[in-house]
Amino acid sequence: MAPLVFLTDFGMDDGAVSAMYGVAYGVDPALNISDLTHGITPYDVWEASYRLVQTVNYWPAGTVFVSVVDPGVGSDRRSIVAQTAAGHLIVTPDNGTLTHVRRKSGITGVRIIDETRNRLAGSEQSYTFYGRDVYAYTGARLAAGAITFEAVGPAAEPDSIIELPITEARRQGERVEGTIDVLDVRFGSLWTNISRELFRTLGIQFGQRAELTITNDTRTVYRNTMIYAQSFSGVFVGEPLLYVNSLDCMAVAINQGSFAKAYNIGVGNSWKIAVGPDTRR
Amino acid sequence: MAPLVFLTDFGMDDGAVSAMYGVAYGVDPALNISDLTHGITPYDVWEASYRLVQTVNYWPAGTVFVSVVDPGVGSDRRSIVAQTAAGHLIVTPDNGTLTHVRRKSGITGVRIIDETRNRLAGSEQSYTFYGRDVYAYTGARLAAGAITFEAVGPAAEPDSIIELPITEARRQGERVEGTIDVLDVRFGSLWTNISRELFRTLGIQFGQRAELTITNDTRTVYRNTMIYAQSFSGVFVGEPLLYVNSLDCMAVAINQGSFAKAYNIGVGNSWKIAVGPDTRR
Amino acid sequence: MAPLVFLTDFGMDDGAVSAMYGVAYGVDPALNISDLTHGITPYDVWEASYRLVQTVNYWPAGTVFVSVVDPGVGSDRRSIVAQTAAGHLIVTPDNGTLTHVRRKSGITGVRIIDETRNRLAGSEQSYTFYGRDVYAYTGARLAAGAITFEAVGPAAEPDSIIELPITEARRQGERVEGTIDVLDVRFGSLWTNISRELFRTLGIQFGQRAELTITNDTRTVYRNTMIYAQSFSGVFVGEPLLYVNSLDCMAVAINQGSFAKAYNIGVGNSWKIAVGPDTRR
Repeated sequence: MAPLVFLTDFGMDDGAVSAMYGVAYGVDPALNISDLTHGITPYDVWEASYRLVQTVNYWPAGTVFVSVVDPGVGSDRRSIVAQTAAGHLIVTPDNGTLTHVRRKSGITGVRIIDETRNRLAGSEQSYTFYGRDVYAYTGARLAAGAITFEAVGPAAEPDSIIELPITEARRQGERVEGTIDVLDVRFGSLWTNISRELFRTLGIQFGQRAELTITNDTRTVYRNTMIYAQSFSGVFVGEPLLYVNSLDCMAVAINQGSFAKAYNIGVGNSWKIAVGPDTRR
Repeated sequence: MAPLVFLTDFGMDDGAVSAMYGVAYGVDPALNISDLTHGITPYDVWEASYRLVQTVNYWPAGTVFVSVVDPGVGSDRRSIVAQTAAGHLIVTPDNGTLTHVRRKSGITGVRIIDETRNRLAGSEQSYTFYGRDVYAYTGARLAAGAITFEAVGPAAEPDSIIELPITEARRQGERVEGTIDVLDVRFGSLWTNISRELFRTLGIQFGQRAELTITNDTRTVYRNTMIYAQSFSGVFVGEPLLYVNSLDCMAVAINQGSFAKAYNIGVGNSWKIAVGPDTRR
Repeated sequence: MAPLVFLTDFGMDDGAVSAMYGVAYGVDPALNISDLTHGITPYDVWEASYRLVQTVNYWPAGTVFVSVVDPGVGSDRRSIVAQTAAGHLIVTPDNGTLTHVRRKSGITGVRIIDETRNRLAGSEQSYTFYGRDVYAYTGARLAAGAITFEAVGPAAEPDSIIELPITEARRQGERVEGTIDVLDVRFGSLWTNISRELFRTLGIQFGQRAELTITNDTRTVYRNTMIYAQSFSGVFVGEPLLYVNSLDCMAVAINQGSFAKAYNIGVGNSWKIAVGPDTRR
């Protein structure tokens, strides 16, 4: 019995998630179900993709994820199950949710869900509730071992799945440049796509100051130096810091404050960040 | 071991729900517990009743629901366990929580909780925490098979349980008229009490336009036509649509927007909706 | 297999909590995991301490709690596991989280986590994710019986753990005086540190009026009489009441309203409350 993990933009204030649980326990009452999050910004496939890559590799091989952030529900977008190189299964509409996991972990197999076989009995007239009737149901059957990956439906090429556009971080002269991918919402930290390895090429050591420039389209939103710290305790309370986050990427925070709120920082490809040595030294 | 599902207006920010889990696992550590939602608007029995009917039938027969939305806690309102025609048990104060489930699924048996037997030991002085000391405890014992339905306490007539007033949707000339029962909060959709069957009597087909009028008391809040779509993908992004929701009732949304926010729509018997053919054709 | 319960200030909107679940299920897929809350105000150790004492004793002996509210992460604050007199284990940074549990239940043993042995393999470079790599991992191994309490690391004196400053409630002339410790956020009730026993010394009976004075530093925020009620149903809707909360302490509410919002009440040592007989009778 593999763990089954749900990810949606449904929120927890109505019964939609619980209906998914009910359908899954109807497949097998012994299933082990939990939530990645149901707080994805409605329709935000990028955010779902990011939350998956942030989490998947901390779960045992065989874990089945069901991701339902599905702005195209009812369109002809495909419903698929992807197998990662590390042995996880992800049930999802094929709309870009797998963008980050594919780059970081690799997708080794894809099956297109055959809905004539993999759909809750009696639900054929429900067009808007794929999350419950197809995805939760299929995920539960996979996790319970009631069907194999192959029984999901016909195989598709891993290269055929939809990817969201990503701008790669890169070394540019004396600086590394990237984008602000997502916020650590509750703590107001900025998570960038600049990997620790790329940052290391600058030779900046723990305790030294780096210079950061954040721009949004043509506007410079922030430019200042801050300490590159091992952890928040390496700076004063209220002081900004540059650190390595749980994805081994560079992140920016204010110790016990919110960097995002302090400077009205957003996320996405138009939010650029450059990090280099302190030019004022 | 039947699944045990909790529904409250407690929120998840303090420890009240976890205390209910603890009491239940104290009854039997092997219980399978999950949450319907704890985000019911405080004291809103109508919303709790709606979330139950939205969810219950997706759970296996035998599942035990514990609903604690209890504005009359400590009054002489009865504490009951109801058995549905489909074989679910619902532990709840008798205050209207069962209104929708009774109409849709039927209640076949009711037992009044005998608190001299069905109460957490040592909790006799706690008057405000029925949710934990009586309801979670009794629900856990039912789910674990430690007591039978009959052992809950004396039987009561299913007709004796309290119902909230409901205005039925109906055909009126060329239109069907109903009320806006509840919001799909996160997506800002309106859920009406107009069933798919009733709507069908109008003969409007997928892809055709229907004319909607929404009134609040004497004020017309919205009047326009929109497409009756199989799913959100049947309209443009930002376009309104009429569709069938997961309860087989008619619902109104804006694709990737919030209809409720766009027009400041509320819920309840004073919010009327009428749907008919496009009168401008 | 003992229950494993997580408490953090991470919120549920990203994947941090789910990564903790994944790490724990990696230790043992049969673990029984649930959430106390993840809605602690960021960095608020006092609130975490309060939520623990509110909940712990409703859980069976042997339950393992993992508390991650850790403003000093990466500093030299100790990581410990505490054993309560009632047989619960609490995995936490030693930063004051145990203040209330220690006073109410007693701490009988403390072990300092030896991170050379009790740390997720491969996580040595992660300085900011103790919650996942050390605390969740160690809690899971304790709950699964993979390590004993003694194997956590070297023993420390229970008296050595950090305590937050607490002002004790006391009888003062004809009144009892205390502080407002925490809000029942969703219902806007005030939870004080005045125990039922201390209040009883005033001789005020159910149904009688008490006089309350709430001050914040030098300002009187509220002064009025209200009924001491067994439960909310003992007063009208919209009427304030004094009652005994689930911690056996005195609390103040408005029936179906929010006392905290009505009078802009906050929490902490600067928020004092005095209760005595109605001086206007």
